[in-house]
This record gives sequence, C-alpha cells and structure tokens, in this order.
Amino acid sequence: MRILSGIQPSGALHLGNYFGMMRPAIELQERGEAYYFIANYHSMTSLFEAEPRRKNTLDVALDFLACGLDPKKSVFFKQSDVPEVTELAWILTTLTPMGLLERCTSYKDKLARGISPYHGLFAYPVLMAADILIYDSNIVPVGKDQKQHVEVTRDIAVKFNEQYGQTFVIPEPQIREETALIPGTDGQKMSKSYGNTIEIFGEEKATRKKIMGLVMDSRTPAEPKPDADKNTAIQLLKLVAPADVAKDFEERLRAGGLGYGDLKKALFEHYWNYFSSARAKRAELVANLDYVNAVLTDSATRARSLADKVLKRAKVASGLD
Amino acid sequence: MRILSGIQPSGALHLGNYFGMMRPAIELQERGEAYYFIANYHSMTSLFEAEPRRKNTLDVALDFLACGLDPKKSVFFKQSDVPEVTELAWILTTLTPMGLLERCTSYKDKLARGISPYHGLFAYPVLMAADILIYDSNIVPVGKDQKQHVEVTRDIAVKFNEQYGQTFVIPEPQIREETALIPGTDGQKMSKSYGNTIEIFGEEKATRKKIMGLVMDSRTPAEPKPDADKNTAIQLLKLVAPADVAKDFEERLRAGGLGYGDLKKALFEHYWNYFSSARAKRAELVANLDYVNAVLTDSATRARSLADKVLKRAKVASGLD
Repeated sequence: MRILSGIQPSGALHLGNYFGMMRPAIELQERGEAYYFIANYHSMTSLFEAEPRRKNTLDVALDFLACGLDPKKSVFFKQSDVPEVTELAWILTTLTPMGLLERCTSYKDKLARGISPYHGLFAYPVLMAADILIYDSNIVPVGKDQKQHVEVTRDIAVKFNEQYGQTFVIPEPQIREETALIPGTDGQKMSKSYGNTIEIFGEEKATRKKIMGLVMDSRTPAEPKPDADKNTAIQLLKLVAPADVAKDFEERLRAGGLGYGDLKKALFEHYWNYFSSARAKRAELVANLDYVNAVLTDSATRARSLADKVLKRAKVASGLD
Repeated sequence: MRILSGIQPSGALHLGNYFGMMRPAIELQERGEAYYFIANYHSMTSLFEAEPRRKNTLDVALDFLACGLDPKKSVFFKQSDVPEVTELAWILTTLTPMGLLERCTSYKDKLARGISPYHGLFAYPVLMAADILIYDSNIVPVGKDQKQHVEVTRDIAVKFNEQYGQTFVIPEPQIREETALIPGTDGQKMSKSYGNTIEIFGEEKATRKKIMGLVMDSRTPAEPKPDADKNTAIQLLKLVAPADVAKDFEERLRAGGLGYGDLKKALFEHYWNYFSSARAKRAELVANLDYVNAVLTDSATRARSLADKVLKRAKVASGLD
C-alpha cells in the first residue's frame, strides 16, 4: 500500500500544525510505503519570493526530520526534484474538463478572499492529480478541505484510462480525523493568520514570554474554576504533558487554589521538555546540512525511478512515445 | 539570432501547407539559428488518439526533411523530447493572470465552434510561452492568428523578470506575409476541413485523378477566357511550373484555343516534377527510419542542453533551486 502526503513549505511550524497534520503524517510511515514531498512547486501559487521559498523548504525538511520522519522507512523529497510531475500534469490537463476546475471550492474561496487570480491557482488541482498518480498512490490522507481535489484526481484518472487505456491506479482519499481544536495564545484557533501561534522550535526566551502571556480571565488564584477544561493553558498542557499530570492541574484549577502564573510556568516546562529531543535532533541536523540534502537527494532518486515508470506508461498510452 | 517555429503534427501536408507555412519555415534555416519542434504535446489538445499522434509526428518529420529542412543547419526535434518545457510551463503559469488567458481569441473561437472545453485548450498559451522562452528565442515567425499568443508570452516573460529578476529574453513576433490564397480542387481555399486538398506526397494515380477533376466552368476550348488568372489550374500552375511556362499557359487560355484537359494534364506533370526530388528523398527516408529517429534524437539533445540552462536560471531566480 503506497501512501502519498504533500507538505506545504509555509514557514516555521507551530503546535497547531504539529498535532493537526505533522504527527499523524509521520505516523503513516509505520503503516505502508509512505511518500512525502515538500510542495515547493505548489508554493509558487501563493508565495512570490525566492529566498523565503528556499528557506521554508529547508525549514520544513529540518522540522519533519527532527520530529521523527525516518528516511529509512519513507521517501522524503522536494517536489521539484521530480520534474516528471509537471510533464504528467500537462498530459492530464488535456483531458481535464474546464468545469471540473471551475467547481473547485478552494479556488472560489481564494477568489472570494480577494486573492489576485493567477492561472496557477486555477490549475493547481491538475498538478496535485499528477503528484498523486505519478507514484501509483493508493491512499492520500487529506484534511476535509482537500477531499474535493482527490475526487478531481480520480475523475481525471478514470477519464485517461477510458480514453487511452488502463494506465493509472485510482487513489482513495483518507480523511484525517479532526483533532480537537488547538487554541492559540488568544484562545482562538491557533493559526498563523491570527498571529497567535506557539512555534514547535521557537527560541526559549521568546516562547516563554508567549506562554506566560496567554490570555486568561481575571479570576483570582483562590477562586474555583468549574470549566477548567475550557482553559487554554489546560488544553495545551493536555497535549504536551503526561496525562496524569495534566489531569492533576485541571482538577486543581477546578477546585481553586491554582494561580494562572503557576499553571503557565508548568505548561512552558512541559512544552519545552516535550520537544527537547526533537530540538536536539534539529540542532544536530542544522549543523549537518549536507546530510539533510543527501537525504532529500537520495529520496528524490528513488521517487524519480518510480515516477519515470508511470510517466512512460502514460506517454506510450497517449502516443507521445 | 535564434528563431523558433512550432509545427503541428496534423497529418499529410498539402499544397496549401507547403506554400503557406512549410517553405517559408524551411527558408528560415538560412537566416539564423533555427529551432523547429514538432508540437506533439500541443496536439493533445485536439487529437485524442495515440496511434494517429505517433503516425502524424513521424509523417511531419519525414515531410520536412524531404522538403529540405537540413538538420546540419537547424535543430529539429519532437517537443516531448525536451520535457523541461512542461516544468517551465508550470513556473510561468503561477504568474499568468487568468484574464490574460480568458482574453485569448483562439480559445474563445474554439468554444464558439462547440469544441468541448478541456483545460489543455485554455492553458495552451502558457505551454507555448514556455516553448518560446526556454530557448531564449529572439524571433517567432507566426501567422496572424498566433500573434496574440506571442504577446501573451511577452507579458508573462516581463512579469517574471519583474517579479524574480532578469531571466528571460523577450521575443519578437514576426508576422508571416499572407501568401496568395491557394485554391483547392473546388476553387475554395485549400483546407483539410473542406476536403479539397492536393497532398504534397499523394499517390500518383489518385493525385492525377484529383487534378483532372479540378472544378472548372463550362466554357469550350476555343472560347477565349479574359480572366485566365483567376482560373484554379493556372493559379496552381504558377506555384509549381517555371514562370515562363505558367505565363504561356495563362496567355493561351486568355486568347482561346486551350482546353481544360490539356491544362490540367500540364499541371499534373509540373506538380509531379516539382516534388520529384523531395519524393525520392522521402522514399529514401522511409527506408531508413533509424536515420530519421537519430536526427530527431540528436537535435533533442542539443535543444535540451540549451533548455536546461534557461530553466536552471528560472529555478534559481524563483527559489526552486
């Protein structure tokens, strides 16, 4: 069973990314032959500067390797190191009905948010179809918002198989279970666009300050808090502390007698501890970028040899070869 | 000065193609560094069968080589043998405003003719832009109907240069002078869609029959014909016979005393003679397909080494590399 995951290189990852997408993605390496690619071609539809693209691409590679992605178990590469995917995208595009792309809600949403409509944004689902089909992927784990794009991929693959003969494996989407909402420093959903994130690998002093500054209510420490489970610090603590420790803090808060300052201090300590081995691993990787680049290059070679085979099938079937 | 020409692999070429597009294109090899590619990726937007695509691609290669395209002077290759062009197309697509493609009249025309709108038809000008820009082309000779696409290419190249720094050469379109209309067997413009074509390399007996069947008026041989220059056979004769011979026939027809049968016989002989060395060359090539394939492969290697350089520039400029 081959599983494909694309990772957007969108800068420093935060706790929301980690528990929502990254940890479940990394766990997939235990369940099949996992292909992960860093979607730098896709990033061109929303980021129009070279240097941040290069930096984000490297950062996301470092973050994933530090957090446990194992290049011996999975294939982990930069999308643009397998340029065959763009050739397949052209082939698929010639059988993609305009209406199929016009109906994609993610394009319509972006337009509605006033994003200047470049063709890349419109054509994006065809490149995504090529990403999936070129590796004969069976399973594509996606968030709910990407489900439609996997359906577009299936439609295009079926159309190609009907027109030019059996060529592509039809992939199945696997919808990621929604993780409980992860609150940011202001209590809203943690998201870069709200400016309320806590980074996985934030600098110590700055992150301590962020956590000590979590927005709370004006209760006094002695006051009991019946809805302790709704408290932002408790919710975050449950993610990074052992279950019994988190439960203990929750009960103390509910009963009264626990001040927010002490709770936040504990949260910071557990957060810092939770990522300590990953942090050490990341520092090691940063000191050894040649190793990181070699991992990406070796993986790309493996991905490319599979991509070549599938692309060749499509080219012969359609009379290009 | 580098000149780029794309050739559609659309089946057996006829006299209209030869005098309208093919001969002027071949003449370019004397005027600069000419790159000719057989546009098999593009053909996917209108032809949805593998075997005819393979056959047409080979046929157009044979026709051009037979008619004088000299692979020592120019670079002559299959579009899909330089897949880098699809990678550049993706890069360019992310900076192509939707409105630019929506305004392309050739897309609107095809829609109006009831052609089922696939995305390939819509995205085609971006692939054409990549075709042009990836060879640092200076001059692109096109028919009037393709002028808009070269303008789209210029717009995209300027946009990229502004966004990511000076990368692409801005190409100039060179509008082909309209050749005098070449009449088909029924007197209308010669065109495959009217079913009135005379092939360059038609079979002898069938072509003689076609020419002897040219539609004429019901005048008797003795009758003078004052507008002899408007006669279909005279117009075709002027293309394939020496100037003085054609003039002599025209005058005899104007004066009266020349029957259509004799005129058509002469036309067939001169047509047959005009292409006799090309016909012999073509037969030789057909008997030696390994040579033809080697020409295409060698040219593709040369084209690819240039394409690699330009693509690398674009990838570094945009932060993919």
